Amino acid sequence: MKIAVLGTVALDTVVTPTGKRNNLLGGSAVHFALSARFFAKTHIVAVVGKDFPIKHVSFLKNKGIIVDSLSKTSGETFRWSGDYCSDLNAAQTLDTKLGVLLTFEPSLTEEEKRIENVFLANVDPDIQYYLLKKIRSPKLVGLDSMNFWIDNKLKSLKRILKKVNFFVVNDAEARQLSGEKNLVRAARALRKLGPKMIIIKKGEHGVMFYSDKITFCLPAFPIDSVVDPTGAGDSFAGGFMGSLSKSRNINGEAIKKALIYGTMLASFNVEGFGPDKVSGISSKLINKRLSSFKKTTSWK
Amino acid sequence: MKIAVLGTVALDTVVTPTGKRNNLLGGSAVHFALSARFFAKTHIVAVVGKDFPIKHVSFLKNKGIIVDSLSKTSGETFRWSGDYCSDLNAAQTLDTKLGVLLTFEPSLTEEEKRIENVFLANVDPDIQYYLLKKIRSPKLVGLDSMNFWIDNKLKSLKRILKKVNFFVVNDAEARQLSGEKNLVRAARALRKLGPKMIIIKKGEHGVMFYSDKITFCLPAFPIDSVVDPTGAGDSFAGGFMGSLSKSRNINGEAIKKALIYGTMLASFNVEGFGPDKVSGISSKLINKRLSSFKKTTSWK
Repeated sequence: MKIAVLGTVALDTVVTPTGKRNNLLGGSAVHFALSARFFAKTHIVAVVGKDFPIKHVSFLKNKGIIVDSLSKTSGETFRWSGDYCSDLNAAQTLDTKLGVLLTFEPSLTEEEKRIENVFLANVDPDIQYYLLKKIRSPKLVGLDSMNFWIDNKLKSLKRILKKVNFFVVNDAEARQLSGEKNLVRAARALRKLGPKMIIIKKGEHGVMFYSDKITFCLPAFPIDSVVDPTGAGDSFAGGFMGSLSKSRNINGEAIKKALIYGTMLASFNVEGFGPDKVSGISSKLINKRLSSFKKTTSWK
Repeated sequence: MKIAVLGTVALDTVVTPTGKRNNLLGGSAVHFALSARFFAKTHIVAVVGKDFPIKHVSFLKNKGIIVDSLSKTSGETFRWSGDYCSDLNAAQTLDTKLGVLLTFEPSLTEEEKRIENVFLANVDPDIQYYLLKKIRSPKLVGLDSMNFWIDNKLKSLKRILKKVNFFVVNDAEARQLSGEKNLVRAARALRKLGPKMIIIKKGEHGVMFYSDKITFCLPAFPIDSVVDPTGAGDSFAGGFMGSLSKSRNINGEAIKKALIYGTMLASFNVEGFGPDKVSGISSKLINKRLSSFKKTTSWK
């Protein structure tokens, strides 16, 4: 099983109540891939600048992630810095330097063009569309986006939404894009934009899944020491899509399982700075936490 | 099985996105009792003023609620008015008239002094303490409170917390009283104040239960048309305590069941103004929704 993820590879600087870290390896494609690797061979499609430390590339390779389409161009790597000190659920963005993202034209190897599972993490919806057109026979395609594209590229965002099977979106963005305050109504409205599966992420409050047949709500795994939530949504998406891509049939059972694995990966993500925690865990540890999570949320 | 609930019986005026209603029958004891009645004979211990419409007393009696200790004194009934238009999760209080609450000294019939299940809904913690002392052999005692008492009667609140088995509190108040932003840590800190069971209500995000042995998280039932959330927390508490009081052993299974029933009753509460919806439902309808809720949240 293979998954291709289009997204960002970044250098993040974060301040949280636990401390400050500079130039952490970050970006949506990185956090997604570090989670998805437990389920499928994961290919990153992204761009970095000349300043990107070679050690980060080696790190990704060591984790079994394929970086054949992680291109290096002249210019600076995408950098983001944020402060979570007043609210661990929402970063205050201190600075964003788009750098090489401004001229990003993703390319794929011939092998990657034949990958059937594609996740379009948060980048310009025109780039997401451009990439998806290169995929020969897309089977399972997921999408993430953000308020910036809702504000500035709504038409492009709606175009790509028609092409994907599932849409992973946070609660604030779901409300903004749908114009509905109530999340059930918001999910229903987003469904009408195209994707058959709507996954609304609610941070520490868990996740809501909506499709024509199933509504499923899952709390987050209770974590008593959140260190850095950066990338938690991408970790969730990686676990969700990883698990789902392994299921023969995308039925209710497969969806619940995928939501549970997504929740597990996100819970590990927030326990360390950047990729620190998720990069050090094992499948065994994930399944151990899953047993504990079952006691915490399952009716029986 | 009998439950006595100490609390307020009020006349509420609310403005929500759905509309405005004046002088609705409200108050913590009313919302609690209308839910608890499905599980146990429920006695209200409260006070109203001379202005309290007799039709409301008849209404409560017709619902099977015992009002022997609903005393009527000179003065005005407690009145509250709130506006939910900007946020359905949190009312903006427009006006509060304490009226007869200022001189409230609850009394009980001899029969009521022998009731073993007592819920101390949100009133002055000194009155809660005074009432509890009248109970001969308390077995299961629950408590609710609010930010006003944390701010103004902390010592009294801590005194009564030592005397109760479970504490039902909303997330903001749990954070305020514990001094912990993280809800897992907050629950742990509240446990140290006395109650063996801590139930943190998170509104549309559900509920978290914490005890030395069990942590359990349950999402809310997804409601696509919230009309008026006033009293949802008390409806939850009534369903929770009603169900729990019927269990022989307060074990994990009984607690999960009680949390589920509390969630069901709260979900009906928000679908109508004041007591409109909960007063019109049946046990059959509650259990029908419970089956639907199971599909929405249970792993299997």
